Amino acid sequence: MRNDHTHFPAQVYKESVLTPLFNDFKQHFYEELMDINYAHCVMLAEQKIISLEEAKRILAGLREIEATIDLASLEYTGEYEDIFFFIESELINKIGLDVAGKLHTGRSRNDIDITLYKMKIKGYLHGLIGNLADLVGSLLEVAQKHKATLVVAYTHGQPAQPTTFGHYLGSIIEILERDLERLFQAYRMCDKSSMGAAAITTTGFSIDRHRVADLLGFREPQENSYGCIAAVDYLTQVYSALKILFISLGRVTQDLGYWTGFEVAHLYVPNEFVQISSIMPQKRNPVPIEHLRIMASIVNGHCDTVINAMHNTPFTDMNDAEDPIQVVGFAAFSTAERMLRLFTELVKGLSVNEEKVQEHLAASFASVTELADSLVRAEGISFRQAHEIASAVTKELLEEGKILTDLEYERFRRIYATVMQREPQISMDQLSEYVKPDYFVAVRECFGGPGVNHLTRSLLRYEEQLDYYREELKGLLAQTALAEARLKEAVDSCLQYLA
Amino acid sequence: MRNDHTHFPAQVYKESVLTPLFNDFKQHFYEELMDINYAHCVMLAEQKIISLEEAKRILAGLREIEATIDLASLEYTGEYEDIFFFIESELINKIGLDVAGKLHTGRSRNDIDITLYKMKIKGYLHGLIGNLADLVGSLLEVAQKHKATLVVAYTHGQPAQPTTFGHYLGSIIEILERDLERLFQAYRMCDKSSMGAAAITTTGFSIDRHRVADLLGFREPQENSYGCIAAVDYLTQVYSALKILFISLGRVTQDLGYWTGFEVAHLYVPNEFVQISSIMPQKRNPVPIEHLRIMASIVNGHCDTVINAMHNTPFTDMNDAEDPIQVVGFAAFSTAERMLRLFTELVKGLSVNEEKVQEHLAASFASVTELADSLVRAEGISFRQAHEIASAVTKELLEEGKILTDLEYERFRRIYATVMQREPQISMDQLSEYVKPDYFVAVRECFGGPGVNHLTRSLLRYEEQLDYYREELKGLLAQTALAEARLKEAVDSCLQYLA
Amino acid sequence: MRNDHTHFPAQVYKESVLTPLFNDFKQHFYEELMDINYAHCVMLAEQKIISLEEAKRILAGLREIEATIDLASLEYTGEYEDIFFFIESELINKIGLDVAGKLHTGRSRNDIDITLYKMKIKGYLHGLIGNLADLVGSLLEVAQKHKATLVVAYTHGQPAQPTTFGHYLGSIIEILERDLERLFQAYRMCDKSSMGAAAITTTGFSIDRHRVADLLGFREPQENSYGCIAAVDYLTQVYSALKILFISLGRVTQDLGYWTGFEVAHLYVPNEFVQISSIMPQKRNPVPIEHLRIMASIVNGHCDTVINAMHNTPFTDMNDAEDPIQVVGFAAFSTAERMLRLFTELVKGLSVNEEKVQEHLAASFASVTELADSLVRAEGISFRQAHEIASAVTKELLEEGKILTDLEYERFRRIYATVMQREPQISMDQLSEYVKPDYFVAVRECFGGPGVNHLTRSLLRYEEQLDYYREELKGLLAQTALAEARLKEAVDSCLQYLA
Amino acid sequence: MRNDHTHFPAQVYKESVLTPLFNDFKQHFYEELMDINYAHCVMLAEQKIISLEEAKRILAGLREIEATIDLASLEYTGEYEDIFFFIESELINKIGLDVAGKLHTGRSRNDIDITLYKMKIKGYLHGLIGNLADLVGSLLEVAQKHKATLVVAYTHGQPAQPTTFGHYLGSIIEILERDLERLFQAYRMCDKSSMGAAAITTTGFSIDRHRVADLLGFREPQENSYGCIAAVDYLTQVYSALKILFISLGRVTQDLGYWTGFEVAHLYVPNEFVQISSIMPQKRNPVPIEHLRIMASIVNGHCDTVINAMHNTPFTDMNDAEDPIQVVGFAAFSTAERMLRLFTELVKGLSVNEEKVQEHLAASFASVTELADSLVRAEGISFRQAHEIASAVTKELLEEGKILTDLEYERFRRIYATVMQREPQISMDQLSEYVKPDYFVAVRECFGGPGVNHLTRSLLRYEEQLDYYREELKGLLAQTALAEARLKEAVDSCLQYLA
Repeated sequence: MRNDHTHFPAQVYKESVLTPLFNDFKQHFYEELMDINYAHCVMLAEQKIISLEEAKRILAGLREIEATIDLASLEYTGEYEDIFFFIESELINKIGLDVAGKLHTGRSRNDIDITLYKMKIKGYLHGLIGNLADLVGSLLEVAQKHKATLVVAYTHGQPAQPTTFGHYLGSIIEILERDLERLFQAYRMCDKSSMGAAAITTTGFSIDRHRVADLLGFREPQENSYGCIAAVDYLTQVYSALKILFISLGRVTQDLGYWTGFEVAHLYVPNEFVQISSIMPQKRNPVPIEHLRIMASIVNGHCDTVINAMHNTPFTDMNDAEDPIQVVGFAAFSTAERMLRLFTELVKGLSVNEEKVQEHLAASFASVTELADSLVRAEGISFRQAHEIASAVTKELLEEGKILTDLEYERFRRIYATVMQREPQISMDQLSEYVKPDYFVAVRECFGGPGVNHLTRSLLRYEEQLDYYREELKGLLAQTALAEARLKEAVDSCLQYLA
Repeated sequence: MRNDHTHFPAQVYKESVLTPLFNDFKQHFYEELMDINYAHCVMLAEQKIISLEEAKRILAGLREIEATIDLASLEYTGEYEDIFFFIESELINKIGLDVAGKLHTGRSRNDIDITLYKMKIKGYLHGLIGNLADLVGSLLEVAQKHKATLVVAYTHGQPAQPTTFGHYLGSIIEILERDLERLFQAYRMCDKSSMGAAAITTTGFSIDRHRVADLLGFREPQENSYGCIAAVDYLTQVYSALKILFISLGRVTQDLGYWTGFEVAHLYVPNEFVQISSIMPQKRNPVPIEHLRIMASIVNGHCDTVINAMHNTPFTDMNDAEDPIQVVGFAAFSTAERMLRLFTELVKGLSVNEEKVQEHLAASFASVTELADSLVRAEGISFRQAHEIASAVTKELLEEGKILTDLEYERFRRIYATVMQREPQISMDQLSEYVKPDYFVAVRECFGGPGVNHLTRSLLRYEEQLDYYREELKGLLAQTALAEARLKEAVDSCLQYLA
Repeated sequence: MRNDHTHFPAQVYKESVLTPLFNDFKQHFYEELMDINYAHCVMLAEQKIISLEEAKRILAGLREIEATIDLASLEYTGEYEDIFFFIESELINKIGLDVAGKLHTGRSRNDIDITLYKMKIKGYLHGLIGNLADLVGSLLEVAQKHKATLVVAYTHGQPAQPTTFGHYLGSIIEILERDLERLFQAYRMCDKSSMGAAAITTTGFSIDRHRVADLLGFREPQENSYGCIAAVDYLTQVYSALKILFISLGRVTQDLGYWTGFEVAHLYVPNEFVQISSIMPQKRNPVPIEHLRIMASIVNGHCDTVINAMHNTPFTDMNDAEDPIQVVGFAAFSTAERMLRLFTELVKGLSVNEEKVQEHLAASFASVTELADSLVRAEGISFRQAHEIASAVTKELLEEGKILTDLEYERFRRIYATVMQREPQISMDQLSEYVKPDYFVAVRECFGGPGVNHLTRSLLRYEEQLDYYREELKGLLAQTALAEARLKEAVDSCLQYLA
Repeated sequence: MRNDHTHFPAQVYKESVLTPLFNDFKQHFYEELMDINYAHCVMLAEQKIISLEEAKRILAGLREIEATIDLASLEYTGEYEDIFFFIESELINKIGLDVAGKLHTGRSRNDIDITLYKMKIKGYLHGLIGNLADLVGSLLEVAQKHKATLVVAYTHGQPAQPTTFGHYLGSIIEILERDLERLFQAYRMCDKSSMGAAAITTTGFSIDRHRVADLLGFREPQENSYGCIAAVDYLTQVYSALKILFISLGRVTQDLGYWTGFEVAHLYVPNEFVQISSIMPQKRNPVPIEHLRIMASIVNGHCDTVINAMHNTPFTDMNDAEDPIQVVGFAAFSTAERMLRLFTELVKGLSVNEEKVQEHLAASFASVTELADSLVRAEGISFRQAHEIASAVTKELLEEGKILTDLEYERFRRIYATVMQREPQISMDQLSEYVKPDYFVAVRECFGGPGVNHLTRSLLRYEEQLDYYREELKGLLAQTALAEARLKEAVDSCLQYLA
């Protein structure tokens, strides 16, 4: 220690850490850093912590840097620890140390870093929310078109009941609208500026944290200054919300996989999404569905990486929540965006193979529960008796290799009479109605059910909800755009001072 | 297949799956199942799907079962697939199949299962939110007491600046109040009844899903019936919210670990939380802190287990989201509860070793930044010059093995004069003030900072916020209690029919 | 601190931590602790660190404790910190402090704890390896029976080629034999005794660490004493090996799920594994397959919990790797065991629905690649031409709604002649051979392929490999049994001293 | 479906999937693909499946492509699905379809893909094993230098006993050598060629799978062909081994963090690894240690992403285990490599602050256990009495604010006499020896302990073990180099045929 003649940075540290950090910063954070510089400077002048003249020189210097900087060719030399110091040194070169040095009054790299992370993530959330709203929009369109198109609903992986494609999609839409809600909730946690926390404890200068928040498009400053630089729940919440979404989307993807399986074939994938084998002309591989699944898994993985990196770290300013992990998070967002866009278009291209659906509904006796239910209502008999009749009918038909719609009135009459010791009152037409899949669906006019009236009302509610979220997104985008305009105007007005 | 003479259940299936399921159900779900039975029956009668007389017999039968059942000694025999069927068979024994069989009209085990999972989780959330509110209450108490007690704030794991224990705790309180918000958000996702979805698609009977939701204490029925039994985002959101909380608590725990380290010793842990070695009488092991960390890790692990079990499952009724995984989730809640209770009491017992804090603040020159800042304001000199002076002062003192409060006026004067080419104007008293840690804190009167006025206001806001959440919890508990009363009354009133 | 009048343990600590720890210890670690006591005492006497007379009294005391202890009714009172201290105090009661106190010479709770964790895990690995070997045995039996039974092999979730069930199972067997290898590797990491590391740094007494290892059934002592109590890679390796296994088994489970899907139906699940619906007599739910999946997910989740709890802990003796997390690991093992047993029996019950397989092989033209390949060999034409012919054939048949085995010689001849400008030389018999699925399989006599000769050889190798692993397991069990005998004998012989 | 006029690829699929895939392939897999092309072609000729003349034309074509291809400027147009087809089309352009088409005989993209993944991972493992061996080498060097340098060993985060830095590092070395073992085990799982599995079931052509394995540097072909393309345990094992390593390294990093904390200061980090603050000249932030931790967390995260992406996928050829996830794995390796290199250099730069260590050992009475142990041996008294004396001594000294080495003979004598009712026999010199930290270490001459003789022997064993692993790595590198030479020679010799 006494004889420490080494100098920072060690070659290995430069190569393994500082250079990658520098390149990441260039690519991801430069613009946000400049906005923070402008906003902080404007506030310092407004609070009279620096003079208007000083502010004017700083702002002009920053504008000049922006106009002339060549980021692409900038390479890490070790002369400046990072882009932050590089910009500061450029500013010093242009306007002198005495004034340039005042820009850093009442702030630190700590509050700057967390603030720009939040700005980036807010931007990514704008995109993601927009993409998700588009997906919901697509699903709604398809659901509207398929309000009455039958599909097979499963329990335990086996055909269970008929429903409609519109009803199935409705269930997905509902979840995704809850995801929109979760993403807005996560957004609000990021919408709190850390500027003014300085290193940890704010500053003795009379800065205005609300004004800086305002100029940077934040709804408000985050209060406790220690939390401003050390809390990571904005990160964990955002990436949890993302993971919740992609766990759900992955499950829908599994359905698509099964339904497009050769033997199942309930859904038809158009050629534009089908990879073909050169030798097997009949082979249609809906590979995009596999890619949806792996993309969802990768998003989930990156989200976990971000969240778990926080595990067992101390609560303090630490690199664990900084650039390297933020960049992993951005990769989650960019994979997420590709996945959502592909999903949105694929969904629009899908069509239901109604013949196959009918074939499997029939072969699986999927509508037999309704025969019993209908007998209860039409014959006034008890549930238990109705079930006995339906079971006997099914058993006989299965043994003869027949399907439910093959049910002959005579067979029904005989079984009914045996069980009930009297003749049935329903007509042959009624009987053949009771076993049809579309009748099964039609009678399910219940809140949240597939009956067309209720489904129509549900879809309407989803539309309204989607409109609501789209408005909310517009509001956030407007807040950001307004802040940008406000910042530009404040800078311009300062630059015109005494001019 | 033709020659399949086997009978359900295979011995291995009974042992490896059905028996454990049965025992779990007995322990966790029996009461909720009975409530669902009562509520569904009441609704069926109200909707005239069954007669009042039938309802009366069913309800009386259920009451009798409750009065006489001996759950503890009930063992899985394979005669009934599960507790659901056992209760049904008991009911049949008591009131006959014809009436007993009507209870299951317009519902299925699918909607029952998801509904009772949500009831359980809502109950666990009541407890967890209460425990978390207690922890925040404890933290607020301690923070109030320590608004002015100095502690060391760190960056990069090194002492950086003085702040107060109250300010540090304020940052934790703010995060935990956001966690309360997240838990309420998650609660709302569980507060939607699935009853009436039946197997998947609702039913053709004119059930009233809102009424059942009401009788079971839910805010509303969940709409789409497919989603009612297949969506799992209620689960993923709840366990994500739990994990977000315990990631944050684990970080605070790491601070406690460092601050109670022998060499650091900023916090004193009272004897009641200290394990002692029989041979090393000086050794004080604050083992509860380690247990906080491992409990947080275990909660996180169980949350991940629940969430990740949903990965790549199909979107359909599947055991992946059912009993076995629910029970893992309950283990997360019960570990969480133990952790929160221990944390709450431990926090109340901690005291700050003010001597050690002062020693380390001094030795680490943690307040030197304020000397420079103060010179800027008092001498009207530029930042750059002030920093040069502060640096020179620090360097000299360090070389002589002195600390900042050792700074002699003459030394300061000499350095100031060298840098500024003039004498300083501040007095000796001012100078000695500028280097004191409590002065450092006192001038930080900024929104969210440690200055006592602002901190006092922050703590007040946190109190109000906590009160608000406590009211919200009370509201949820009242909603549950009211529903219980409503259900009891509806059952009683039906039982008195014609009586 | 000066005024700390509290006494250990705080009520909350007792309830939230100490009592659960005590109960876990009773349930899981008592027997291993006693073995360690015996073995350590024997070694102390052999090394003359204590006298034979002292050893005799200690061992007799321990035997008496074992004979009289009533673990079940033992409740945590706080009088003894844990079971370790309880046993020590019992011993003191029986033989007096002076001699009883010598048992703890040259050891500490640290080395005892890690040693007994390893003993437990070795026991669990014995069971798991045995269960896995049984599963492989079952798979081999079924594979032998189905060396020639056709099934559909998939790529991208679509039927691609015919193969045999034996060949498919061979692929699983190969993986599981690699898992056996991984489990033995993990076992070897646990097979190193930590005894003698004492608290961290061994001891100044001339203990014999190899002898204690020997008496406890370990292959050897772990060397570095700090690592003995702080390294956790024995844990992370064991639970990684477990997770690798269950990730693979989960994938096979997904295949079973698809193949038993109603529309696919390539595998028939016998009644004993099928849950039936009361109303839908045709519905056959192979629910055990779902349970296999969720059990695999839960094992994976518990493994992750154990491994991730180690993340960002310090390298030192810490509770993070101790009782609470060990117990989570044991839950992984016990779920794993149930899963393996169910899988083993289910596999034996499965049968192939050969008709369905043939139907789907035909409808999917799965064997068409071999037509082209065979033409290359039989007609001496180029690959490219052969493919052109096969493609044209396929296209025509598909358009006419025919399948590959419908291919008429005349159609083939016409297409062949058009492409090749000459007549084909192959006979009609040859042609109809080339398009058959079993011909497809039969010609694949290649190392690792489904051709019956090569498959037979593969299965033989797997048998041999399984025998080898079974011998290895026997060796480990023998090592344990021998050590038990050795320990008992040493204790007995010491007890007979001077008797 | 009848009216499907769309054409592959959809624009969105091209943008969201195909283009990124194309670019990844260019960057990561081109060279391995070409090697596979050469090796497969050589084998086809040797097996007389194609003629030597044909092989010669193919190989010449491939060589020409290699000589002229401009990968950097290659952009995805959609004309070729991927690089594989692009190369094939280039080959066709150069040598005509008839011959070019024969290259793909007896193989498929499935076996090619998995084979090239294994080739890549083997290459990454070569690098990683080399880096890890270098780290172990560094640790050994430092451990040799510090065989006798005292450090503080901790339990429960509190100073517990003295040991040496060499002994501490020995524990890490032992773990890392086990990691080397695990990495070699994982390597062996990747060292099995999948070539010849073709799509799934091998081929009817008489290919030689062993020969191709040989030419590509694999130890052997993987046997079962279905497993060759569908098993993923090579992936899960490699990334588990990586995670096990980085969990351990992360724990050592936590120790470095604590030991370089300002208040602890047992380790000194040289300037070249210390980031300094412009205003706080005394502040020394060993930021590289934080980066080690976050890099370890990121490696762990990427490993989990790869492993968990396999969860609940079917066992079949699927994109889940292909390019996109492989690339995430490569990111784990490249972060791992940077982390290991930084760790290796940092370790070499660390020095022990012996003064601080002595101060904290003394203040924490860390060596007091040895006083009692020594009295047992020197005075022939019982353990219990010795401990009573040591405790009384400690209590008195602590009350007077003294440390253990302050112990006066008279005080000892008095306490001894009170407890034992006789005078002690040991001399004053003996007494002062018994309480010294280096005596504590010196007497711990036990297998695996810090006593210098045993530690020296341990380090020697570690050296030998490291040499062994270095030889093993050399062997693997030689195997690869030899195969490259063999392949080149085989190609050259074929190209010279008839020339």
